[in-house]
Amino acid sequence: MTMRPAGGYFFEDYQVGQVFDHAVPRTITHGDTALYQALTGSRNPLHCSEPFAQALGFPAAPVDDLLVFHIAFGKTVPDISYNAVANLGYAECRFLLPVFVGDTLTARTTVLGLKGNSNGKTGVVYVRSTCFNQHDQAVLTWVRWVMVHRRVAIGAGEHAANGETQFAAMVAPAHCRPAPGQADLSAVLSATGSAQYWEDLEAGQQIAHPAGMTLDETDHTLATKLYQNTARVHFDLQHMKDSRFGKRLIYGGQVISICRALAFDGLGNALSILAINGGAHVNPTFAGDTLYAVHTATEKWPLNAQFGAVRLVLDGYKNLDPASPDFNDLAEAHQVLALDYTVLMPRRHN
Amino acid sequence: MTMRPAGGYFFEDYQVGQVFDHAVPRTITHGDTALYQALTGSRNPLHCSEPFAQALGFPAAPVDDLLVFHIAFGKTVPDISYNAVANLGYAECRFLLPVFVGDTLTARTTVLGLKGNSNGKTGVVYVRSTCFNQHDQAVLTWVRWVMVHRRVAIGAGEHAANGETQFAAMVAPAHCRPAPGQADLSAVLSATGSAQYWEDLEAGQQIAHPAGMTLDETDHTLATKLYQNTARVHFDLQHMKDSRFGKRLIYGGQVISICRALAFDGLGNALSILAINGGAHVNPTFAGDTLYAVHTATEKWPLNAQFGAVRLVLDGYKNLDPASPDFNDLAEAHQVLALDYTVLMPRRHN
Amino acid sequence: MTMRPAGGYFFEDYQVGQVFDHAVPRTITHGDTALYQALTGSRNPLHCSEPFAQALGFPAAPVDDLLVFHIAFGKTVPDISYNAVANLGYAECRFLLPVFVGDTLTARTTVLGLKGNSNGKTGVVYVRSTCFNQHDQAVLTWVRWVMVHRRVAIGAGEHAANGETQFAAMVAPAHCRPAPGQADLSAVLSATGSAQYWEDLEAGQQIAHPAGMTLDETDHTLATKLYQNTARVHFDLQHMKDSRFGKRLIYGGQVISICRALAFDGLGNALSILAINGGAHVNPTFAGDTLYAVHTATEKWPLNAQFGAVRLVLDGYKNLDPASPDFNDLAEAHQVLALDYTVLMPRRHN
Repeated sequence: MTMRPAGGYFFEDYQVGQVFDHAVPRTITHGDTALYQALTGSRNPLHCSEPFAQALGFPAAPVDDLLVFHIAFGKTVPDISYNAVANLGYAECRFLLPVFVGDTLTARTTVLGLKGNSNGKTGVVYVRSTCFNQHDQAVLTWVRWVMVHRRVAIGAGEHAANGETQFAAMVAPAHCRPAPGQADLSAVLSATGSAQYWEDLEAGQQIAHPAGMTLDETDHTLATKLYQNTARVHFDLQHMKDSRFGKRLIYGGQVISICRALAFDGLGNALSILAINGGAHVNPTFAGDTLYAVHTATEKWPLNAQFGAVRLVLDGYKNLDPASPDFNDLAEAHQVLALDYTVLMPRRHN
Repeated sequence: MTMRPAGGYFFEDYQVGQVFDHAVPRTITHGDTALYQALTGSRNPLHCSEPFAQALGFPAAPVDDLLVFHIAFGKTVPDISYNAVANLGYAECRFLLPVFVGDTLTARTTVLGLKGNSNGKTGVVYVRSTCFNQHDQAVLTWVRWVMVHRRVAIGAGEHAANGETQFAAMVAPAHCRPAPGQADLSAVLSATGSAQYWEDLEAGQQIAHPAGMTLDETDHTLATKLYQNTARVHFDLQHMKDSRFGKRLIYGGQVISICRALAFDGLGNALSILAINGGAHVNPTFAGDTLYAVHTATEKWPLNAQFGAVRLVLDGYKNLDPASPDFNDLAEAHQVLALDYTVLMPRRHN
Repeated sequence: MTMRPAGGYFFEDYQVGQVFDHAVPRTITHGDTALYQALTGSRNPLHCSEPFAQALGFPAAPVDDLLVFHIAFGKTVPDISYNAVANLGYAECRFLLPVFVGDTLTARTTVLGLKGNSNGKTGVVYVRSTCFNQHDQAVLTWVRWVMVHRRVAIGAGEHAANGETQFAAMVAPAHCRPAPGQADLSAVLSATGSAQYWEDLEAGQQIAHPAGMTLDETDHTLATKLYQNTARVHFDLQHMKDSRFGKRLIYGGQVISICRALAFDGLGNALSILAINGGAHVNPTFAGDTLYAVHTATEKWPLNAQFGAVRLVLDGYKNLDPASPDFNDLAEAHQVLALDYTVLMPRRHN
C-alpha cells in the first residue's frame, strides 16, 4: 500500500491497473438507517419494516441500496475525487447482495482508464469501485469517471487514452442480485399502499410525482458527514466562497436519494434498486432548492414468477413542479438529475 | 382495499364508516429514539435510561409517547389530511400500551362524521385513528377533525352533519394504560432531579418553564421526515412561497414535543402521557421562532399506591418568555399551542 | 439530596465539598453514535468499525471519547453552569474506561474551590466531575472552572479563595486507561489509511489539516440537544438577541469535536483520547463559521510494546485556512480553540 500524497492524488499520479484499498471500514447500525430516513423522507417499507422485509424472504430489513452506495462512494473520495473538477458519469453499477445492520463495509477501486484533456490542465480518470461486506463478498460495484486536475499543466493538444474508457450502456438484470425466491407478496399492497405491479408499467409511461422537497444546508451536510464523504465542496463555505458558485454544493448522491424518496408516491412498488445503468448531475443543487421527480419507464423483464425488473429514467428538477403549466418550457433549465436505473417490482399475484 | 386517487382524497370521497388501512409499517429502532432526543432535547429518563425504565417495572425503556404519536399520525396523512386546509382539533387520545424498540407500528383510520361547511368549498372530516403493534394490539387511539377541500365546490348554505361529530371533553384515566404495578420509586429523584410528586401538584397551579428553544428549518423537516409525515406544507418551499405564509410551516406535533421537552425543567416527574383530552394549534410556527411553555394543573386522580394522574393544560408561546414583565399583555398574540392532556406521576413514598 | 432552586444555583449557593448527583441517567445507543458521526464527520475507524475495534482488543467498538465527554458534561450543566458567565478552563481530564453501546452514564460533581471576583458581581467555581457507567465504575473525570453570577452583588474588593483552585498542568499517561494489551496492529494501516505511527511524531512537529468544516445553526443545536446540554446560550435565540453576541453561541465542545474530526486527515492514527491536560475557548463560534485545525506535538511516551502516548496542542481557527498565505498574521484573531491533550497511537510493528 502506498501512502496518499499530502494534497491528494492528481491526474499524473494515476496508472491504469492501480488499486486503492480505501480506508475506514464502516459498520452499519440502526442509527444510520434512521438518519437516512430523516434525511431523505424515505418510506419504502422494505427498509423500515422488519415484518415486511421478512415476508419478502429477507432475514431482516436490508439497508437502503442508496445508503450503501453513498457510504461506499464516500470511501473512495479521498483517493479518487479529492482533486476532482467534476464527477462526469456513472455506469455499470450493480447491486450484488443485500446489506444488513451489523455488516461492515469496505471499498476498493481499480483505475480502468486515463485520458488527458486537450487543455493540458486536467484529465479524466475512469475507475471501477467495489464495496465488500465483512465476509469479503462484493455487495456493490460501479464505474465512474471524474475530471481531475493535473499537478503540473502540460501543453495543449490531443492526448491518447489508455485502458478502458467505454462502458456498457446498460446492466443486464441477470448480472445483479437475484430476485427473492419465496416471497409472500400478499403484504405488498398494505405495506406500500400501491396496487401498481410490474405488469402495470409500460415502456414510455411517465409518472410525475406530486411532492416536492426543499433542501437546507444542514440536510446535506449531515448526510454527507454520515456517509464520511470528505469532498470539500460540500462542507467548506470559506473555501467555496471563492468558487464560481460562491456557496456549498449539495452532494449529487443526496439529490438522487431525495428524488427516489419523493417517487414513493406514484411508484411505491419499486422495492429495490438492481442496477444504475448510467447517470449525470445535469446542474448543481444548492441549499434552498426544492426538488421534484419524474420517472419514465423504458424497458422491462420478468425475473421469476413473483418479480420483474423495470428500467426507469429518473429526471430530477429544482424549483419547478412538474404539475405547473409551463413545465415543458422550463424543464431543461431546471433539470438537475438524469438517472437511468433498474428496479425490482413485484408481479401481480392472487 | 380501494386505491387512493391521484391527488389524494377530497371531501366528497369520504363516507361515514369508511376504513383506511394506512401504508408503510414502521419498525422502531434506537436510531429513531436518538433522533427524537436530538430533535427535541427531551431529557425524560424513562425514555433514555434502561435501568430507570426497568426500576419502574418496564422490560426496557419505552419509546417516547409523542414519538409514537407522531409516527402513527404520519401514517394517516396521505389518506386523511393530504388536502387538508387545517387540522382543527384532537380529542379522545388514549395511550393504551407502551411501545418498545423493535416493535412495528401500523395505523388504521375510520371516518366517524362529515360536515360540509356553509361556504360549499370545504368540509370537516371527523376520524378515529388507531395505531397497532406487530401483535395487532392497539397502542394508541385518537380522534381528530380536519378541514378538507371539496374537489368541486357546491352552493353555499347549511349542510347537515352525518355521523359522529361530538366527542368527550376528557379521557378518564381508567381508559388509558394502567400505571406500573411494582415500581421501585427510589430511583425517581436521582433520575429526574425533581422532588415534586403527584401530591405536590394542585388544581390551578401554574408552572412557567424557564428555558426557550429556537426551531430552525432543518429541525422540523428532519423530524417530519423521520415521522414519514408527507404533508406538503412542511417540506415544499416552492409550493409554500405561494401560500399565505410564504414559507414552510412547522408540523404542529413538533411544537408539542418541544414544549413538552422544555417542561422537564419544572415538571420532571410527569413521566408519561396517558391521554390527550384535546388540543389546538392556535397560531402557526415557523423556523426562527423560539418556543416557551407554561403548564397549568387542572385535575388529579390517584391511580394506585405508587402513581397518580394529573390533568394539565400546556400553553405554548413563541418569541415571548413567560418570565418577561409584559407577558400577560402579549400572551394571546404569541400563543401557538393549547393542549389539554393527562400525565402519569409518581406518588410520595418512603 | 437538596433540590435545585428555581433559576438555578448562583455563586453564593456553592460550598467547598458540596456534592451534586446530577439527574438523567443516559443509556448510549447506536443512534447516538450514528448521530455523532453525522454531526461531526468523524471517520475514526475505532468508533465506526466493529471488526477494527475487535482487532485492537476491544469487545466492541467503543463510543467516541468526546461523545462520552459531551454527554457527561451536559449532565453537569443544570447544577453547575446554568448561570455561568463563561466556562474558563478545563484540567486533569482523564479517560478511565471505554464506554460501549448499551452502557448507562451518570455524573457526579464535587465543588473543589471558590473565589469571588473583585467586581463583587461574579465568582469562579472550581469543580471536579466524574462520569460513571452502570457498574458504578468511573469512566471519565475532569476539573473545570466557571464564572458564575452572584445572586446579590457585594462590594468590590479582593476576596479570598477557598479550597482548591490550582491544578496539575498535565495528566500523566499512567493515570489514564491502560493501552490495549493484545492488539492486532496489522489492521491499522488499511483501516485508518495512515502510516504515521507513534515513532513518527516528534515534539515541535506541526500538522495543518487540509479540510475545513462550516457549522450551521441546526448542526450545533442538534448536537447539544443530543448531549442533553441545556445551557441557554445555545438554544434560545429570543434570549440571545439581547446578549452581546445577538445570536446563539455554539457549544465549545462541538468545536472540539469538529476540529478533532478534521484532524483525521493528517493524524489518522491518533486512535483515542487518554487525557485533556487543559483547554480554553479563545473566541466564540457562531453558525456560518468554518473551522480549521492545526496540531502540534509537544511530548511523547511509550506505553507498552504496541502503543505510545503523544501530547498534542490542537489549535482551532475560524474562517482562516492554515494553508492561506497570510495565516501567521491573522491566526491570533481567528483562533477559537486551544486544547492540550494526550492521545493513544500505535507503534511501528512488523
